[in-house]
Amino acid sequence: MARLTLTDDDLRVRKWLANELQKLDCSLHVDQMGNMFARQAGQLRSTAPMIAIGSHLDTQPRGGRYDGILGVMAGLEILRTMKEHGYKTQFDVGLVNWTKYILPAFIASSGLELIVLTKFSEEGARFPKSMCSSGVWAGAIRIQDAWNLRDIHDPSVTLRSELERLGCLGNVECSSNANTGFPLAAHFELHIEQGPILQETGRSLGVVQGAQGYRWLKFTVHGRDAHTGTTPFGSRKDPLLSAARMIAASKDIAEIHGALASTGVLAIPPDSSTNTIASEVTFTLDIRHPHDSVVHTVQDECLKTFSQIALQDGKGVTFDWTMDTDSPAVKFDKDCVNAVRVAAEKLVGPDQWMDMTSGAGHDSVYTSKRCPTAMIFVPCRDGVSHHPEEFCRPQDCALGTQTLLEAVVEYDKFMAGKCSVN
Amino acid sequence: MARLTLTDDDLRVRKWLANELQKLDCSLHVDQMGNMFARQAGQLRSTAPMIAIGSHLDTQPRGGRYDGILGVMAGLEILRTMKEHGYKTQFDVGLVNWTKYILPAFIASSGLELIVLTKFSEEGARFPKSMCSSGVWAGAIRIQDAWNLRDIHDPSVTLRSELERLGCLGNVECSSNANTGFPLAAHFELHIEQGPILQETGRSLGVVQGAQGYRWLKFTVHGRDAHTGTTPFGSRKDPLLSAARMIAASKDIAEIHGALASTGVLAIPPDSSTNTIASEVTFTLDIRHPHDSVVHTVQDECLKTFSQIALQDGKGVTFDWTMDTDSPAVKFDKDCVNAVRVAAEKLVGPDQWMDMTSGAGHDSVYTSKRCPTAMIFVPCRDGVSHHPEEFCRPQDCALGTQTLLEAVVEYDKFMAGKCSVN
Repeated sequence: MARLTLTDDDLRVRKWLANELQKLDCSLHVDQMGNMFARQAGQLRSTAPMIAIGSHLDTQPRGGRYDGILGVMAGLEILRTMKEHGYKTQFDVGLVNWTKYILPAFIASSGLELIVLTKFSEEGARFPKSMCSSGVWAGAIRIQDAWNLRDIHDPSVTLRSELERLGCLGNVECSSNANTGFPLAAHFELHIEQGPILQETGRSLGVVQGAQGYRWLKFTVHGRDAHTGTTPFGSRKDPLLSAARMIAASKDIAEIHGALASTGVLAIPPDSSTNTIASEVTFTLDIRHPHDSVVHTVQDECLKTFSQIALQDGKGVTFDWTMDTDSPAVKFDKDCVNAVRVAAEKLVGPDQWMDMTSGAGHDSVYTSKRCPTAMIFVPCRDGVSHHPEEFCRPQDCALGTQTLLEAVVEYDKFMAGKCSVN
Repeated sequence: MARLTLTDDDLRVRKWLANELQKLDCSLHVDQMGNMFARQAGQLRSTAPMIAIGSHLDTQPRGGRYDGILGVMAGLEILRTMKEHGYKTQFDVGLVNWTKYILPAFIASSGLELIVLTKFSEEGARFPKSMCSSGVWAGAIRIQDAWNLRDIHDPSVTLRSELERLGCLGNVECSSNANTGFPLAAHFELHIEQGPILQETGRSLGVVQGAQGYRWLKFTVHGRDAHTGTTPFGSRKDPLLSAARMIAASKDIAEIHGALASTGVLAIPPDSSTNTIASEVTFTLDIRHPHDSVVHTVQDECLKTFSQIALQDGKGVTFDWTMDTDSPAVKFDKDCVNAVRVAAEKLVGPDQWMDMTSGAGHDSVYTSKRCPTAMIFVPCRDGVSHHPEEFCRPQDCALGTQTLLEAVVEYDKFMAGKCSVN
């Protein structure tokens, strides 16, 4: 699936979705970032914010058919099922289609900042910055910054001009503000795991507790270029050798702490050659753990060990580093998570579900800043996502959807109970 | 100095050199690769091949003022000195200016093959293959292959057409054939060390015993791209982590054997990112030692260790490798080397010279295939070469030149002695 956000393809699926939602007597609201909110009335006819099921229908330039799409389709199916069975929740419930993949893949946000991943602009993204409309909704990203993003292929096109052209620039403020925006009582999201854990442990459902904290560091190791044939080991300042030892050490350190440390990018000067020691090496280090304190410990130990490694070979190297992203861990709402757990336990019993922590970014990470949030993971084949081979078995899609339905019903009852107690 | 071979700049220095040599009553011969041979008659008026002093006047695109140039200027100064002092060797002596840097930097030849280093074509080289005219002279490279090289900026220009345009296409066959080419009785070359050993050990002269053997291997490590946040260590096939361990291990293995193992190039797919495990990593391994058997042992141990490393982390990786270059060690002629040793011992005493092995490629490596050969190294600042900062102190240039002079005189006497014995 290649359905880039705010393209004609995206518009077609938005129109289809709006039409399906109308058949279900939902009221439809579009905000100023094109986020679609469908609302189905509950028995109480309460004006309180709705309990939302949300995800996104847009995809990576070369994505799969499940990432995001499963979550929205599940929400639609749940609203249909409720209508078909004449079942009405106490509070209003509804569906959100977030405008997500303004940039493809690995959208990362750090607190209140946009993370610029310029490299993605080479991969077919339309706009040169990474952001989420759920981030604008949550107040983490300024709408003007989002609107001003320009199409990398045609700088005369901005995100706002595309929203206008497609008729997706709604009149609702993109925020959770109770008076001017579209606040939510809760946000539930069903998503493929995007990792191999459920498949490898033979589980059907993941009850997501929150999102890992992570830090992205970038290291530059400085050495001196020298001829490999004429320069003895003792005379060298070899930054690639030192970087290799650092990368190996970071994995070993992270493993001791049950954390992750990964190097995805390593770059040497373009004029490098087989018989020349590189002058400089740059590499990234991505450290993750569900607890921020462990992320910090791994970072500290890596820095200490790297300093020792820098002196280990030849005449030694120097290095400096920057922190490009600092994304603290997110903990989802305990009552929302509990609603998912109750549903999972009921549907598959104690051995078939497990607690998990999300390793990837999701709209739910943003919504959790403004409303009680939880997520459900279902297995995907070999953990592959953002790829045409992405696959989730039909029975897993169905089981995830059923869990989502029952979690929403559970949470609706929980809210109603709280009200009656109050 | 940027004096690319067979350019108008190169022609200017060639004309200057020819003029200086004419003043010394030398006969000048140019072969079909533009190599210049100047011959000064000895006392014996022998028709035997001359004892040659040779190196090159052309440079890297961004080179220094010593690499090659020192060797030719020293030879010219020696011929001048002999003439000024009315000194005549027994046999004819002379000077060779080899057409060397058809490609800049690190010209590498492997036995009878041309080594294609396509990356150099990005760095300002004129012709897209690496070769030496001394290689054609030695029969290691076919002249037709050399002539057919095309200028990377203008494919209508070939090496042969440039030789013709500049008037550098001589009528002597480029070979050591006694009847049709320009054979040499011996070849002596003075060169900056291009490494830090003399400077670091406080020596003035290196008596070069030959050239290291070396092999250039290229490894491709195959893993699987995966999300750094959602993929536990145990589920990964991380080729960059494995490559890092391999690079570190290769250095440790080489060190045990007193050899060199160096990685100059490491490449990952261009769509790599901070939060994605790379799918594949390529890296080079350059193994060197004066004895071929040690090069082979280091290679064997690296391959064995790499196979273990490939299984070490997560679900493991696979790798394959190719040998891009196999350049056996070269041992210079013992009588030529002895002539240099005698001269060095006489000029600086036993503590100021040392035996060395050349780590870089030189015209002398080719001439040694066809005639007795030896080299003299002088220190260069910090071992830097192929760089504008390349520097050799005037007193070191002078001492090297004096050593070269006395080695040639010594070898001339040795040859004369051999004749009288016969």
